[in-house]
Amino acid sequence: MNAIFNRRSIRKFTKQEISDETIETLLRAAMAAPSAGNQQPWHFIVIKDEEILYEIPKFHPYSQMLRDAACAIVVCGDLVLETNKGFWVQDCSAATENILIEATDLGLGSVWLGVHPDKDRVKPVQSLLGLPETVVPLCIIALGYPTDSKSPVDRFNKARIHTNKW
Amino acid sequence: MNAIFNRRSIRKFTKQEISDETIETLLRAAMAAPSAGNQQPWHFIVIKDEEILYEIPKFHPYSQMLRDAACAIVVCGDLVLETNKGFWVQDCSAATENILIEATDLGLGSVWLGVHPDKDRVKPVQSLLGLPETVVPLCIIALGYPTDSKSPVDRFNKARIHTNKW
Repeated sequence: MNAIFNRRSIRKFTKQEISDETIETLLRAAMAAPSAGNQQPWHFIVIKDEEILYEIPKFHPYSQMLRDAACAIVVCGDLVLETNKGFWVQDCSAATENILIEATDLGLGSVWLGVHPDKDRVKPVQSLLGLPETVVPLCIIALGYPTDSKSPVDRFNKARIHTNKW
Repeated sequence: MNAIFNRRSIRKFTKQEISDETIETLLRAAMAAPSAGNQQPWHFIVIKDEEILYEIPKFHPYSQMLRDAACAIVVCGDLVLETNKGFWVQDCSAATENILIEATDLGLGSVWLGVHPDKDRVKPVQSLLGLPETVVPLCIIALGYPTDSKSPVDRFNKARIHTNKW
């Protein structure tokens, strides 16, 4: 599917805003992800406030592009909602990947910025956004319309494929 | 995008085989996933051997459908390839979600069976497939052509969306 193969990490954005309708579509895609025992342990913080976006690069070393992003979505796992213990990271990662693919399909650029399990990123995000202690930010997705297009990249590697056994 | 919204967990399959070309497309989708620092810490074991598929439900309680699956893909993280420590689960989860969406797009049914971090599932999978100790099975994806179609389900929940702060 094109959007899967065309998705690239995009870090340069135009000034164009993203409509609320488009953001809702991204969040619908996120919540369509599978989860362990259908636990859906996720929360999403949509950040459009420039002042908040500007705070993040002060502690997250790879997030400078947030200063030019139209918005960011912070994907969080809620440990209270996690009925199948140990699986929230996988569930929230699937939701994150759905946002990236849907964004690509809608002509948006995006990049996945890792937060958990790096405590030097988790704590400041929790503090900045006023998250309860049981709500852990997995990642921040920077979003915006791209300034230019990046060609698809072929990462296919036959050496990583094994048949029946190692 | 339709494949994101139409994806459901499918556990009943016809006897139809999946072509090698189709399996390669699924693995190409998997390896198109983003990863922390582009570390690509994944390996994929494609199981078509019925005898191996029959062994898995003996220790994995939710995997009975593997006895009727055309094949399974075990998505593994290689700790030696993990240059950004702590992020392999997220990378391999994104690769897994790509397989599920691509499978849906190709008319296949699939279901994500959790393995890591449950040690009672990780150890028997490592033993059955002869995996090195540093290669951890994240999940098993059962695959096949579905016996019938499942309607899309709407999991959208506005209560999980927050603007700017919690």
